[in-house]
Parts: sequence; C-alpha cells; structure tokens
Amino acid sequence: MNVLILGGGQLARMLILAAAPLGIRCQVVDPAAESCAADLAPWHRMAWDEVLVRRDLLDWADVITYESESVPCALLTALATQHKVAPSAEALQLSGDRWHEKQWLSRLGVPVAPHRCIDSLADLQAATAELGFPCFLKWRQQGYDGKGQWRLNAHSDLASIWQAAQQRPSILEAGIAFTREVSLIASRRAGGELVCYPLTENRHQQGILIHSRPLADDPLQAAAEAHARRLMQAVDYVGTLAIEFFVVDEQLMANEVAPRVHNSGHWTIEGAETSQFANHLRAICDWPLGSTRLLAPTLMLNLIGQWPSEALTLAERGAHLHLYGKAPRPGRKVGHLTLRARSEGELMSHWLRLQPLLPRSEQPSSSE
Amino acid sequence: MNVLILGGGQLARMLILAAAPLGIRCQVVDPAAESCAADLAPWHRMAWDEVLVRRDLLDWADVITYESESVPCALLTALATQHKVAPSAEALQLSGDRWHEKQWLSRLGVPVAPHRCIDSLADLQAATAELGFPCFLKWRQQGYDGKGQWRLNAHSDLASIWQAAQQRPSILEAGIAFTREVSLIASRRAGGELVCYPLTENRHQQGILIHSRPLADDPLQAAAEAHARRLMQAVDYVGTLAIEFFVVDEQLMANEVAPRVHNSGHWTIEGAETSQFANHLRAICDWPLGSTRLLAPTLMLNLIGQWPSEALTLAERGAHLHLYGKAPRPGRKVGHLTLRARSEGELMSHWLRLQPLLPRSEQPSSSE
Repeated sequence: MNVLILGGGQLARMLILAAAPLGIRCQVVDPAAESCAADLAPWHRMAWDEVLVRRDLLDWADVITYESESVPCALLTALATQHKVAPSAEALQLSGDRWHEKQWLSRLGVPVAPHRCIDSLADLQAATAELGFPCFLKWRQQGYDGKGQWRLNAHSDLASIWQAAQQRPSILEAGIAFTREVSLIASRRAGGELVCYPLTENRHQQGILIHSRPLADDPLQAAAEAHARRLMQAVDYVGTLAIEFFVVDEQLMANEVAPRVHNSGHWTIEGAETSQFANHLRAICDWPLGSTRLLAPTLMLNLIGQWPSEALTLAERGAHLHLYGKAPRPGRKVGHLTLRARSEGELMSHWLRLQPLLPRSEQPSSSE
Repeated sequence: MNVLILGGGQLARMLILAAAPLGIRCQVVDPAAESCAADLAPWHRMAWDEVLVRRDLLDWADVITYESESVPCALLTALATQHKVAPSAEALQLSGDRWHEKQWLSRLGVPVAPHRCIDSLADLQAATAELGFPCFLKWRQQGYDGKGQWRLNAHSDLASIWQAAQQRPSILEAGIAFTREVSLIASRRAGGELVCYPLTENRHQQGILIHSRPLADDPLQAAAEAHARRLMQAVDYVGTLAIEFFVVDEQLMANEVAPRVHNSGHWTIEGAETSQFANHLRAICDWPLGSTRLLAPTLMLNLIGQWPSEALTLAERGAHLHLYGKAPRPGRKVGHLTLRARSEGELMSHWLRLQPLLPRSEQPSSSE
C-alpha cells in the first residue's frame, strides 16, 4: 500500500512510523519551509494546489490522507473525483469552520456551548448582551493551540479585541464552567466498523495541551462513543477522529472535532493495544481495525518549546520519549513523553519525579 | 544524536524505527544490491572499506554500530581508532568465528557442546571418531539461518559433506539431545549498566527461527543472566547482544552468540516495556537503559518466504504485523507477526486461529 500524506508535521511523522511495519510506504506533501516527517519519507515541498498536477505522486498513491487542517477542502474535493481520499473533504469542511462545526454537532444532537456567529462589531455587541461575560471570541477558521482565540471579560474589551481578531469571521462562545476536559479518539472504516479509545482527560495551558491521561471505565464513555458514532456515520467518516468535550454537570458538551489523529491520542502508542496512528492507516487501507484496549496506566506529557535531557528522562522507568526532530522554539510542540506503569500509584510517582525535569511551558510566540 | 548503521537489512530498519522517537537520526551503509532500510533513512551503497574514506559520513556520525555479522572486523578496528564504534570489533571477532566463539565461551565458564576444529578431511575423520554420530559440521564463519551447516549421520557422509562444505575452515559439533532452545537478549552500557530480557523459547525449522516466546520466571533465567554478564563484561560490550542456548538436562549449553539485536528479541517491540532496538540505541548513545519487563503474554512468529493477507491477519485481536519491505522469495525472512494477549490462554487461541493463515516454511533457496 502507498499512502500520500498531505501535511508534513509530527502527525505525519508518527503516521509514517506506524505505517512501515504494516508494509505501507508513505510520501509527504507540505508547502512549509521545513517538514519533520522528511527524515523518514520523501517530502515534496509545493503549493497545495500543485498536487493536482503531480501525476507521478497521484498515480503512486493508493490512498491520500491528511494530517493538517490547513489543507484546502477544495483540494480534497478535486482529488476525490479521481482518487481515494480519506477522511473526506466533507469531514474537514464541517470541522474546519467553527460555525459549521457547531451547526453540524447541534443538528446531530451533540450538545455544544451557546454561541453566535460574528461578522461585525455590531454582531459582537449583540451577542455579548445575550451570552454575557466571560465569553470567548474565536476565529471560524485556522485557529488552533490557543491561536485565534480571545477571552472577553467586559463590554470595554469588545472594540479592541475585534481589532486584535483582525475583524475576521468568528464565533462568540459563552464561557463554560466546566469541571474537566476530555477527548474521545475513534477510528472508523468504510462500511461502518468503528472502534473507540478510552476517554482521555486533558489539561491545557494557554490553549496548548499539556498532558493527557486515558481513563479506564469513565462513566461518560458510553455517551461519548454514541456521539462519535453519530458524527462519523453522518459523514461516512474513514480514518481516526478526535472529539474534545467539556464536562459540565457530569454531562458532555462538545468543544471541537479534529478529523485526524490527535495530540490527546499520542498515549495510544504505548498505552493501547493498537495506536491511533495504526488504526488510522488500517481504516484508510480498509483493513480490520485493531483493539483499543488500555494496556496499562499511562500518561502523556507534551514537551513544549524544548525537551529535557535524554539521560535524565530515560532514567525514569517506563518513560518513553518521542521527539519530533524539530528545533526548540518557545511555544512549539517539539515532542512528548509517555509514562507507562504497573499501577496508578506507580504512574503518579513517575510523574512527580519527572515534573521538575520538564520545560516550563511558555507563551507561544509562533504560529506552531 | 546521529547513528551510522553498517548493514541495511530488517534489523537496521527496526533500529531506525526505534531511533526516530528518541530524536536519533540514522544513515545506513550496505554494499548489497538492495536495502529494506532505505525506505526510512539514507542508504549508501558502497564496498565496506569505502566507508573509511567517506569523511562526510564519519564526521556526521556520533556513533557507528552494525546490524550484520558480515561487516569485516578489520573495518570496525580501523574505524574505532578515530570514531566511537559499538559494539566493539572484538565482540564481532569472537562471535563471528565459531571456533573462537567456543574458545571464548569455554574460557569464561559457559558450557558448550563438545567440538573440534576442522581444516581437512583427516580432521573430520578423527573428530567424528571422537564425537560420534549424529554430529554437525558448521563453517567457522558466515553461516546463519541454517546455511553452512550439515548433519552427519555416518562415516559414509564425510567425504561428500566435506565437499559440499567447500572444504572451508569449520568446526564439528557433537549432536546434542536438547529438550528445548532458548535465548537471552541483554543490553549493556559503557560503565556496566546491564539489563536482561526474560528468556525466550525458540523453535527452528531447517535452521530458520519459526517462533519465539518469552518465558515469565523461567528457572534458568538467573543462570542465563550470569553467563551474559560474564561475556559482556569480558569484552566491555556496549549494545544489545543475544546468546542462544540449548537446554540439556535442565542446564544451559551455549550454542552461539550474536553481537547485535536478534530475531528472537523481536517480540520485545510489543511485549516488553522497552524494545531490544531502543535499548541497543540507548546503550550506544550512553543513555540509561530501559526496563525489560514483560508487559503481557506475547509470541513472535516469523514470516518466511511470503506473508499472509493483511486483512485476515489484522482481524485477529492483538496481532501486530511487521513487514520488512522485502519482495517475497522462498526461505527469505520477509516479516514477523507478534501476538499480544491478556492471558496465556488467549494467546494460544490467537495462535491456533492464525496458524492456518501463515505461509508454510519452505526450504531456503537463497542466501538470505
């Protein structure tokens, strides 16, 4: 099997590492100035649209997938007329615009926070009057890792924040008093075979994921799976997908959907019988999906900006280092660390001992 | 860290897959016409000795390692004068010649089968008179996977088999009535830190490994570890090493030593906290070694000649496919399959269901 991956970041890198044992060869397309997947597979630097005329790559590929939401939907639609593309352009289109995403979720009965569509300062004034403070202005498109999001605390913030947001099409979301944030990773194959991983509890700092921990037998597991099943069936989704939820009064409220492998699923490499990356590939190759069972107590810590010394990190029993081959830079995800232990108690001991070694997260200063 | 790997077969491929998450970049040198590691790292096809004049590669590498016993010892010795080479030339020299290997093992008190050095038909006649039949003629150098080995059943075999062996320097080994074959994989770091994996029970067919199964708490574990420790300390070994043993009257008798990651340790990718590949890299980079604990009941099956359909294989829960990117060919190791289960009983059920899917092993017809 040959897989062409649109996007050449760490998600592509980890897909390639999961692909090789399955006998799948990968190539990567990314217009960016660097690609950390290029260590492990041929990287073609070109404008997105140029892919359409690269017959060599298109003929080579058995299936085309994407790891980045910055891939244009129109490109996927055009490619899909003659090639197998998974997940579909529709999935990216729905999740790639916060307004469409909220409509899609609501239509399918998945609860979301109260929100309004914002195209002008007048919209923003009207919406804050309805939703109250605090609330959050978020670009409809291209915001991630805390970028393109602003907290509004009072009427006096509106004009300056609408300016800071470059008056781009946005939504306003009511502030939600959530008790925790969880995500569900699920993989679905054409025809309907679907597997869900254990719900994962996530902690963010300044909009960036700091750590993820899979939860054995969380009481909200069944509800989350029902939501995932409904969303994926509705668009005949093929591949791995993540849904981030707020937990409010012990109920799930969807925050956003990522139509791809997801940072909060990196723990599956060591912690699950089959990783989210292997299951994404199995899904898009139309092979049977693998078991998602939790192997052992596991915790994933993101490495932001820089990474701790290998010698100190690896001295901790059950610590698995994942570096992405990226240069250190404030706010950049340069790797992650997965801890796997024999018991929850042992896991917590590892975590406490590693904590002082980890770089303190810093305010992101780049778009990555 | 930059690692130059001498040899570009599946062991290099799996080293590269373990290296990437640790932030280690690899390049590969192999004079062969193809390299299945080339999918994942730059492959330089050149005669072994040419490496000595490739300043670009040598300056790039922080450490040079090897995955193949066909690398000339003289090359390693020459490289080691100016570069870090691990494991050392000495380890390869001792294990790469069956006569030297037997002397080394005996000298360190590791039991071996009765054996004689054979340089002529007269030697062979004298040795069979002493050791009796059946016995085995084995080339001192370059035999592996059943190649370069002949069983002798009677005096009438001697002349024809000496001819078949091309009169090459050999040893004669007494036939051993062993009850089982086991191997120990161990990793050692400069300075002495040493970890051993659980003993692995192996089954061979026509000299090729068919399956390996790690044994929890085998009564011979401590004895095997003591042998490994003695051998590795004696040559200040750095990296991963395998010792194959016969079990005779519930005692270990060493058969051979491989100064590298080993086929009977492939189960460690899914079955151990840290794989033999990761520990080899951690050892040669002088980083702390990882835990070798057995995660779950595990079994590795070699795929010889060809591989079963992905769709059928992956339908089995806990089956992990590892293909090497090699074309199918009779007798060739093209991949392996690791089964991981929640219990020994479940493991056996998986194995029984997969058995009919596996290619029947065939007589090797190639040198691989």
